[in-house]
Amino acid sequence: DGQALPGGDLAARLRFLTEADLLKSVHRANTLIDASRRENSGEHSWHLALYALVLGGYAGAGVDPGRVIRMLLLHDLVEIDTGDVPLHSAGGQAHHSAAVQAAETAAAERIFGLLPVSQAAEFLSLWREFEAVETPDAIFAKALDRCQPAIQNLRSGGAGWVEYDVTLADIEARVGPWVEQGAPEIWNWLWQELRHHFAE
Amino acid sequence: DGQALPGGDLAARLRFLTEADLLKSVHRANTLIDASRRENSGEHSWHLALYALVLGGYAGAGVDPGRVIRMLLLHDLVEIDTGDVPLHSAGGQAHHSAAVQAAETAAAERIFGLLPVSQAAEFLSLWREFEAVETPDAIFAKALDRCQPAIQNLRSGGAGWVEYDVTLADIEARVGPWVEQGAPEIWNWLWQELRHHFAE
Ligand SMILES: [Ca+2]
Repeated sequence: DGQALPGGDLAARLRFLTEADLLKSVHRANTLIDASRRENSGEHSWHLALYALVLGGYAGAGVDPGRVIRMLLLHDLVEIDTGDVPLHSAGGQAHHSAAVQAAETAAAERIFGLLPVSQAAEFLSLWREFEAVETPDAIFAKALDRCQPAIQNLRSGGAGWVEYDVTLADIEARVGPWVEQGAPEIWNWLWQELRHHFAE
Repeated sequence: DGQALPGGDLAARLRFLTEADLLKSVHRANTLIDASRRENSGEHSWHLALYALVLGGYAGAGVDPGRVIRMLLLHDLVEIDTGDVPLHSAGGQAHHSAAVQAAETAAAERIFGLLPVSQAAEFLSLWREFEAVETPDAIFAKALDRCQPAIQNLRSGGAGWVEYDVTLADIEARVGPWVEQGAPEIWNWLWQELRHHFAE
């Protein structure tokens, strides 16, 4: 309600939303499906939230699709400071390095820290939950975050994979377990499509 | 649950999500805040959903922020077929013309029609509600959709306004009533910022 939101808080929230605009200039390894350019992390976040809205019925028990959408809207904001670390870069090793995780945590604290304290704490907690991939909501969100770039690459003819020398076995190892855990029916579909693509 | 979602439905949903990728290539009149390029409607939709998440506390009574987010994730998909019709083009007359509205309705039926029937009907209904701007959720969603490009223009130094010869009175007429109705505190803030910008 309005009484809980004095004018100073509104200015802080709008500064955060202005900062968020920078995510539209962070580029990812995969392209748009027409291969015209690389995808940016802002439009990727929209596409993922739409995935959650459309595919919520494939989530496991106890998943709250609205909460997954909130998680996905926020999940990449840290890349404003750190950039996107491609899943398949450095032979798949860079993505989960301790250095990357420390930088992302510092970024989350800075960026969510632009907000009034209670909202900052709420968003930081949602981001940490996504990163930990332990709750049903985070497990489903992570499944979608692994599945969407694979579909972008499939539908664009695999351009993003060629650049990083990605094999079917790499995808099975780096994408498969996450999608299978969070959305097994989607993994069944994706695995068939992937095998067909790499057999060609 | 899985039984309600046979494999054919999954393929249809993924075709819809592939089609949605095209929204990332629809460009708007306003730029990113750093003025490096025009904003596209995919990343705009993400930014708006984030606005709803961050600013939900400024909504009027009876607004469901989660439903507003769903509405905003879907609201611009019709532009895949029609393109974005800038608010300030043709002296502000083009945006609500009957021809534009008929084209957008046909686009909504085609694009949401890619989905299984029950989800297609649900999304079409949410999109129609947004367009009608009569319910509390749609009134708040529309306020955000008018407010975000104005803030992009303010923060980028007004590049998008110069191109269309937009005056303070134009914004007061084309943006003001919507933001004031859906989020009066935000309009108070924005109006002060706008007056300051145009006085310089
Ligand atoms: Ca629009």
